[in-house]
Amino acid sequence: MINLELIKSISNPSPSKIVLVVIDGLGGLPNPETGKTELETANTPNLNRLVAKGICGLTDPVSPGITPGSAPGHLALFGYDPIERNIGRGVLEAIGIDVELQPGNVAARGNFCTVDEKGLVTDRRAGRISTEKCAELCELLDGITIDDVQVLVYPVREHRFVAVFRGKDLTADVTESDPQQTGVAPLAVTALSPEADRLADIANQFIAQAKARLTTEHHPANMALLRGFSSQPSLPTMNEIYKLKAAAIASYPMYRGLAKLVGMEVLDTETSIEDEFATLKQNYSNYDFFFLHIKGADAAGEDGDFARKVSVIEQVDNALSELIGIEPDVIVVTGDHSTPALLKGHSWHPVPILLYSKWCRPDRVSEFSESACLSGGLGRFPATQIMPLAMANALKLVKFGA
Amino acid sequence: MINLELIKSISNPSPSKIVLVVIDGLGGLPNPETGKTELETANTPNLNRLVAKGICGLTDPVSPGITPGSAPGHLALFGYDPIERNIGRGVLEAIGIDVELQPGNVAARGNFCTVDEKGLVTDRRAGRISTEKCAELCELLDGITIDDVQVLVYPVREHRFVAVFRGKDLTADVTESDPQQTGVAPLAVTALSPEADRLADIANQFIAQAKARLTTEHHPANMALLRGFSSQPSLPTMNEIYKLKAAAIASYPMYRGLAKLVGMEVLDTETSIEDEFATLKQNYSNYDFFFLHIKGADAAGEDGDFARKVSVIEQVDNALSELIGIEPDVIVVTGDHSTPALLKGHSWHPVPILLYSKWCRPDRVSEFSESACLSGGLGRFPATQIMPLAMANALKLVKFGA
Repeated sequence: MINLELIKSISNPSPSKIVLVVIDGLGGLPNPETGKTELETANTPNLNRLVAKGICGLTDPVSPGITPGSAPGHLALFGYDPIERNIGRGVLEAIGIDVELQPGNVAARGNFCTVDEKGLVTDRRAGRISTEKCAELCELLDGITIDDVQVLVYPVREHRFVAVFRGKDLTADVTESDPQQTGVAPLAVTALSPEADRLADIANQFIAQAKARLTTEHHPANMALLRGFSSQPSLPTMNEIYKLKAAAIASYPMYRGLAKLVGMEVLDTETSIEDEFATLKQNYSNYDFFFLHIKGADAAGEDGDFARKVSVIEQVDNALSELIGIEPDVIVVTGDHSTPALLKGHSWHPVPILLYSKWCRPDRVSEFSESACLSGGLGRFPATQIMPLAMANALKLVKFGA
Repeated sequence: MINLELIKSISNPSPSKIVLVVIDGLGGLPNPETGKTELETANTPNLNRLVAKGICGLTDPVSPGITPGSAPGHLALFGYDPIERNIGRGVLEAIGIDVELQPGNVAARGNFCTVDEKGLVTDRRAGRISTEKCAELCELLDGITIDDVQVLVYPVREHRFVAVFRGKDLTADVTESDPQQTGVAPLAVTALSPEADRLADIANQFIAQAKARLTTEHHPANMALLRGFSSQPSLPTMNEIYKLKAAAIASYPMYRGLAKLVGMEVLDTETSIEDEFATLKQNYSNYDFFFLHIKGADAAGEDGDFARKVSVIEQVDNALSELIGIEPDVIVVTGDHSTPALLKGHSWHPVPILLYSKWCRPDRVSEFSESACLSGGLGRFPATQIMPLAMANALKLVKFGA
């Protein structure tokens, strides 16, 4: 278990620099035709160069057998216990579309759905209306104000939207209105603790007003369901814990949002891999920690596109050449979870990691791959230990105890 | 996490004998010229013989990335959670100079310092006065009694001393008087809980009396600062947990003190490595657990003296020959942390360990080194698990559950 209080008590600011390169969904499974994973198939001279001088291993983002979502995967990489600090669905949905939440706001995921004349749900997704239609309906509902609480409504995709309740004394501890099945009526939102009475009441009023506004003319989208009510968690920032001035470079809103949650500054960047590394180089002197996120590998894995995932890894390898030239004190390359193209989704398989620093104790591994990492000097370990290891190798941690 | 209650419930006294040889600071980093660590450079036929018949691995004394002080490093070796059982600075300083503490005593680290005519600190170390001068000043302050609390003052080195508050109803939960900077006045000691009011009051009176006694004639040492107020923690003894009759052989006071804290008997010994092993042999029939501590490797590492550290390891190897001849049931050789000569200090790198017993399941490793231990049968594990493993291999643990 990660002990952030301990890390906080021994971390010290220093000029040394740490770069954490996250190739989203890095880990894979062997192609049945070649017996090689995506990473093993890719031609990666720069990664291999780092591994040869560095140390490698395999991480478990949450724990063996657990397939992490993007949020737990990244929280673990940043050193936070991903189980203890689980982030609510509503908040994640908001973060994923770049909606800025304020402390005390409550966010919920919404579905436009279809109800019949008796009020029973007949289609939880309203026939997957278009994203344009969703945006039009969100405009219809956006800004409803109930008892000084403003409800902001943002379209996501197809039938999905986000509702943000902005006002005083809101507690997210309420049940969902989505019955998760058809043939029944939407559920009333009910408070699970006395402090949540106010939000439950406002949410039910909002749903009633939404129903009224979604008149028959918008059929099949004539009702809204809400679930995943949650507030932004209050996390100690990476500056508070590690005394780092941390910057994030990510082309997707979700990862920028997660970085903001832990107090990183998000740098403006163009979205190609080369652009992201160029952004790092331009800002190199202003920060001592960089989180650089590459989405493409995960997206290719989710699509089941083995070759494209290989290609993304090769692009990262290519871009690493210049980063190595800048000589950061510590370079970590890993993923937030595995996304094998064969499984077309996130998976539980442990994630390859390499750590390069002048002060690591190198192992004998000379190739960055799942199978080679098995005999790496870092062994197999929880991803929450990556940050302490990176900090140690950057000589930013003082001795614990005398 | 170590579960001492579980171990206690299944440990049984038996005639089998365990020897734990701690080569302080054992782990290292490769010499850039040879690519080999201190241990890998040393010629160690006896250690290799033990590894060939035994099992090996790598331990994390506290957790990955954390550099342990000597106290956490040793507590972990003895099976105690080093975070939960962190020992205060004052107590450690007292232990380090062989001062016997009694339950309820409070120890503090002291500095002689210089204050100007306005009472502001101008030098926190009083120009690093000689150890002789320090001893003279300690005599001046030693034995001051306030409200039935006697304050015993012992010199450490240069400007540093230890103050032990001996009396009833003392609680160490107080702030420090050392402002940790110059140009400001020493701070008043204040209680952090109501029970600590009495100690805070007595400490302030002591400091005032010390100031009066350190008249201008002792300039630059005209004031005293106190920090690290702490009491001896109450630990279950190794006899209580493991039912062992445990003996310690160590040439440095700090390690004798730590051994006493966990209930070991400290054996008189001459200080060379050969002497320490001879002491073990002489007392072999009287105990069933021996902790034998070798300081030289850590001292050489701290001095950045790679060759001397190699030589200390070779001396230990040589002395092991006779120990092997006595045929203890279990021999464990490890360190309390790494001290790479390259870093000139303790480090976070995992520590090689070998365990030899008739009942271990041998691995294929035939050489005691950091890189070979990577593929050892013990894997990489928290140092707190060493004692349960040693106990199991000595057949001193009964089955857990039916």
